[in-house]
Amino acid sequence: MPMPDNQLLDRYAELTVRSGVNIQPGQQLVVTAPLEAAPLARKITEHAYRAGASLVTVLYSDEQATLARFQLAPDDAFDVAPGWLFNGMAEAFKGGAARLALVGEDPALLSEQDPAKVARANKARAVAYRPALEYISGFAINWSIVAFAHPAWARAVFPGVPEGEAVERLWQAIFAVTRTDRPDPVAAWAEHSAELERRAKWLNDGRFSALRYSGPGTDLTLGLADEHKWLAAGGKAKNGVFCIANLPTEEVFTMPHRERVEGTVRSTKPLSYNGTLIDGIRVRLKGGRIVEAFAEKGEETLRSLLATDEGAARLGEVALVPHSSPISQSGLLFQNTLFDENAASHIAVGQAYPDTIAGGGRRPKEELARMGMNESVVHVDWMIGSEEIDIDGVREDGSAVPVMRGGEWAE
Amino acid sequence: MPMPDNQLLDRYAELTVRSGVNIQPGQQLVVTAPLEAAPLARKITEHAYRAGASLVTVLYSDEQATLARFQLAPDDAFDVAPGWLFNGMAEAFKGGAARLALVGEDPALLSEQDPAKVARANKARAVAYRPALEYISGFAINWSIVAFAHPAWARAVFPGVPEGEAVERLWQAIFAVTRTDRPDPVAAWAEHSAELERRAKWLNDGRFSALRYSGPGTDLTLGLADEHKWLAAGGKAKNGVFCIANLPTEEVFTMPHRERVEGTVRSTKPLSYNGTLIDGIRVRLKGGRIVEAFAEKGEETLRSLLATDEGAARLGEVALVPHSSPISQSGLLFQNTLFDENAASHIAVGQAYPDTIAGGGRRPKEELARMGMNESVVHVDWMIGSEEIDIDGVREDGSAVPVMRGGEWAE
Repeated sequence: MPMPDNQLLDRYAELTVRSGVNIQPGQQLVVTAPLEAAPLARKITEHAYRAGASLVTVLYSDEQATLARFQLAPDDAFDVAPGWLFNGMAEAFKGGAARLALVGEDPALLSEQDPAKVARANKARAVAYRPALEYISGFAINWSIVAFAHPAWARAVFPGVPEGEAVERLWQAIFAVTRTDRPDPVAAWAEHSAELERRAKWLNDGRFSALRYSGPGTDLTLGLADEHKWLAAGGKAKNGVFCIANLPTEEVFTMPHRERVEGTVRSTKPLSYNGTLIDGIRVRLKGGRIVEAFAEKGEETLRSLLATDEGAARLGEVALVPHSSPISQSGLLFQNTLFDENAASHIAVGQAYPDTIAGGGRRPKEELARMGMNESVVHVDWMIGSEEIDIDGVREDGSAVPVMRGGEWAE
Repeated sequence: MPMPDNQLLDRYAELTVRSGVNIQPGQQLVVTAPLEAAPLARKITEHAYRAGASLVTVLYSDEQATLARFQLAPDDAFDVAPGWLFNGMAEAFKGGAARLALVGEDPALLSEQDPAKVARANKARAVAYRPALEYISGFAINWSIVAFAHPAWARAVFPGVPEGEAVERLWQAIFAVTRTDRPDPVAAWAEHSAELERRAKWLNDGRFSALRYSGPGTDLTLGLADEHKWLAAGGKAKNGVFCIANLPTEEVFTMPHRERVEGTVRSTKPLSYNGTLIDGIRVRLKGGRIVEAFAEKGEETLRSLLATDEGAARLGEVALVPHSSPISQSGLLFQNTLFDENAASHIAVGQAYPDTIAGGGRRPKEELARMGMNESVVHVDWMIGSEEIDIDGVREDGSAVPVMRGGEWAE
């Protein structure tokens, strides 16, 4: 597999360990990674041990094996998931382990497979993963997600370019948007993280009860959860460790009210959901619920996703990203949520983050539900922002303040 | 990485799935494998799905990461093991999953590392793995161990030979001793397995209470457990599935009495224990316990091993293998127990297999202990047979029957 300049890869690994997951002395680290990411996983492992980690365990996945299952396994296999492994991960997190995910899958791996089987496998996996996911969505431990340039992903981002060159170009793009190519990436992230926190504070001070989106095909009033809190991806987990949960990140985000979203909205970029590309989404929401859903591509997968459980057709996250973000400016469609969600304002169906309500982690679930929090076994982001979208912040008294104009911060 | 002839590798994968672990329709399969074994693991995954497996999960390990830990991690890291992962595996086995291990490590990976740290890491790992190991040692599920030609292993087996050629020669040796190069390997294993069962029956019919070993440096009377049973590696697990737990296997084995072994014994081949080579072992046993232990190489590791817990200095297995076995005839020192233990008669310190006592799986532990069963978190085989060793079977009344002469079956 072609790999980038070793020195940059090493700095990227160090940035991941120090600024991303911020591993602590004596802490275990659980990493998930595709097989192809082994060279990066090894460098991350080394930096984690240098930082004092007691044990780094990399759980490798293999897209070829996943594909072989869809091609060869008996039909009743697709309701089975490795719950025993996810329970093990939950036990690790309960014991204080940190979590790192290396992502960069083939965005179209399962596009030729039976969508019904794919939906069953996704649901079985999501249900089984729930106990582990709660430690992540509840921010109980320090965690982070970073990318690596998988050859199949690189081919999808740079169609028609020879694989070696595509991988090289994707690495350069990753290093640029993660600020790895700056003289001091760790310092650059400290500065950028502070700027995002400043933006979140401005939104919190605005005390908006809803956001109003307008643009081509989009006319949406998105009510926010009671006592919602705007956050940036950098923050202190409940174990007291400051981490940046996504590298890169350009967003500030909070919790929509699960019952107070009305209107229509269109996606502005495709999204890759477990190996299937979904593009050209148009939905109508009523009482917070998606009551009509269309897609130009991957509509069956979209419908299966929304039908996963009661909460899968309601919103769990709303995030604001200026159109001038470095990722948007790269001009690339990454077909990977970690990047594309940082190129545009977005929403997510499914599970909400309790911490996006003030004191959310300590409130009982019933109270959080009354305040507007959505629950689901899934959490899928999709992009609704562009340079044609205006957003207003609306207060309880009906007064409105411009938040974004033409996709940029209004102030 | 150089890989062998694809067709033979595919037949080897099929043999592993069908004759080794014998995966059943609807069954999950948990595989452990070093990263370098990915091409073989993928073929095994495909054959398992073809045979009806519901889910194959490969847990990859990485020797480079293991080495990095010894070089970089803080001192207190070495009492930590991934108990959460092993508990997950135990949950999988409890749920009926089958187990396959792909082995073939660098036999000297940790030979330059601090033996005290290596011993602590080994012990932490053995203790944490115990809940999962009990499903294996108790034969609750179908399981198997097979090898793959890791480049570092190949270099150790063929010193001075260029790596690509060494790997190719090691694969050819593996294919030969596992009968993969026969016209119908699955049929060849059915026949060979029946022959080993016939040999086990002869030993059971002999009703020996002890074995007496004599040869250069060896003068040992090894008492057998009460109601012990001789077994071959092929057998029916408690879940009703016939599997061959080791590929290759040439041994018949049973349980020594934990308190009735007296005399001296010398190793006849080196053994590789978690990355350290131990060679030239001489021990003296009294009342079943190793009371003196020396080694020409790796003596500190041997002493740490024997000090792991109370049962680590007592015997858990005794196995008979003729000196004319195909593995012995290959003339190769594999430095890997899976092979070398099938080149010579051997004993193991540590955990015994309950099934080597009649009805052992159903008897309470206290009763098994009274009958002579040893318990430990470790189980390590080492070779004591050669063409210079004679073995007699001794009955309660003192009468003796030749079992082996000059390393061969006496009849």
